[in-house]
Amino acid sequence: MDHLALPTYADVAAAAERLHGHAHKTPVRTSRTANEELGAELFFKCENFQRMGAFKFRGAMNALQKFDARQRAAGVITFSSGNHAQAIALAARMLGIPATIVMPLDAPAAKAAATKGYGGNIVTYDRYTEDREQICTALAEKHGMTLIPPYDHADVIAGQGTAVKELLEETGPLDVLFAPLGGGGLLSGSALAARQLAPDCTIYGVEPEAGNDGQQSFRSGSIVHIGTPQTIADGAQTQHLGGLTFQVIKRDVNDILTASDEQLVQCMRFFAERMKMVVEPTGCLAYAAARQMKEQLKGKRVGIVISGGNVDMARLAGFLVG
Amino acid sequence: MDHLALPTYADVAAAAERLHGHAHKTPVRTSRTANEELGAELFFKCENFQRMGAFKFRGAMNALQKFDARQRAAGVITFSSGNHAQAIALAARMLGIPATIVMPLDAPAAKAAATKGYGGNIVTYDRYTEDREQICTALAEKHGMTLIPPYDHADVIAGQGTAVKELLEETGPLDVLFAPLGGGGLLSGSALAARQLAPDCTIYGVEPEAGNDGQQSFRSGSIVHIGTPQTIADGAQTQHLGGLTFQVIKRDVNDILTASDEQLVQCMRFFAERMKMVVEPTGCLAYAAARQMKEQLKGKRVGIVISGGNVDMARLAGFLVG
Repeated sequence: MDHLALPTYADVAAAAERLHGHAHKTPVRTSRTANEELGAELFFKCENFQRMGAFKFRGAMNALQKFDARQRAAGVITFSSGNHAQAIALAARMLGIPATIVMPLDAPAAKAAATKGYGGNIVTYDRYTEDREQICTALAEKHGMTLIPPYDHADVIAGQGTAVKELLEETGPLDVLFAPLGGGGLLSGSALAARQLAPDCTIYGVEPEAGNDGQQSFRSGSIVHIGTPQTIADGAQTQHLGGLTFQVIKRDVNDILTASDEQLVQCMRFFAERMKMVVEPTGCLAYAAARQMKEQLKGKRVGIVISGGNVDMARLAGFLVG
Repeated sequence: MDHLALPTYADVAAAAERLHGHAHKTPVRTSRTANEELGAELFFKCENFQRMGAFKFRGAMNALQKFDARQRAAGVITFSSGNHAQAIALAARMLGIPATIVMPLDAPAAKAAATKGYGGNIVTYDRYTEDREQICTALAEKHGMTLIPPYDHADVIAGQGTAVKELLEETGPLDVLFAPLGGGGLLSGSALAARQLAPDCTIYGVEPEAGNDGQQSFRSGSIVHIGTPQTIADGAQTQHLGGLTFQVIKRDVNDILTASDEQLVQCMRFFAERMKMVVEPTGCLAYAAARQMKEQLKGKRVGIVISGGNVDMARLAGFLVG
């Protein structure tokens, strides 16, 4: 598969084969309290329990497993200060592939430490004077490394789609599916899986209210760029969708919704208090949107993708007692 | 089965049938980080994800399902300010049985509210001047209610044993099993299941360092009573084992270990940070003991029972940042 070609469900299915035994088949959880609150039957796909704490491991692992011998020897490079960096570092370590992560000088120490902990080689840059994609491209060319970007890549999208494939294989067809939206890797992969396994499912992407570029793009029909949004959902602070992810989203998704930071905090508390789970703010987007749609969801079978659980303990404590 | 007779594995198996479709089959989770830290293969049985947040639901539901028509009509009564109270209240509501919970006047408001939320009828008493067991017995006699105590009851023990039955059916035989110990319902049920399904398994009970009555009892051969221990593990502040639970523990368990409050807090942080789970202090006992036994566990397959996740959010936040 050309990684610039639009991925299909067949690519999601092939990714699932590749991930078998490497990625966790994460639990699908239910909550009587949540069901009663919404008058619906909810199924939570818990990617906060995925390796390194987020769905990102799926896409990274799928992409790296497709490397040929030359690519494996020369290594992988990416730019990210978030979950994708840790995902690439961990997947590369598991496969014995050298990994280089380009991160801003002022990235949170905890994120840099986690990435280093997984064996990633970190290259820093000054984000006020340097361009990370240029640095990446230059390094990649010089050393023959393969760039795996965070979302706009067919193998990454196909890998992310395996979470919803697992969900639907466990629950059977659902009426509605909610998935978080940042750059669109998770949402487009989820849509590929859902369109195949539950053709009548209504699919919603959910992004932070403060950064609704996806909603603007979806409704206007072309990719809208915005400044870095101010939101606690740090996994969805992307400034624009990708060329590939947008094509799938435009075709297969029903609408893009938003959630406020305050709604995300309410969900984090619900997950911790009632479902005994740590969910990062971005991971709360899907459920936060579902909670706003009680009327439309009544009596429906609803899938909620919880994308990750990587949140600093001090920050989590602050959200819980706020 | 006479509830004063010693339960057997057959009772655990019968309880599993009864709980099917009522209790969650909770996930068994693994952690690469934990495995690397201990040099062992660990399997965490997540009863913090059980209905009402703790294994206690299993025993309560099993006991109530065995009620005959007369018992169902007259209702159940119990004394507890903790997870057993919520378990009885929820199981009773699910079965349409009236439930009366005898709780101290000064029980935490959150616990009383949770029990009421599950539909329990609360009767308070002054714990400085009144005896809860006397109050219970008097009420039970007057109204024909059936008393289901928190742990020393054959149906309760058999119900609690279903968690380890599920664990071993999923993992196959394990070399070592760690389970928290309060009054002994969970530990004795676990031992019944493990002795049948993994006969060579070494079984450890783990209680708070500050309240090692179980260890003293186990090593001396008769039940030792202590004052209410000062520990954050509020689910294991029992003052003595039960007559039934002790008989099973004495026969089937290999030893009783302890963990300090500080070790429990370290585990709570590990669970939240690395495994994205909320675990109450009592729920950390098993893993806290395993972490102290690295040498003996090297290369072994080890089961860890996480008993519950009911901890107040403000308290949790305090533990996480402490």
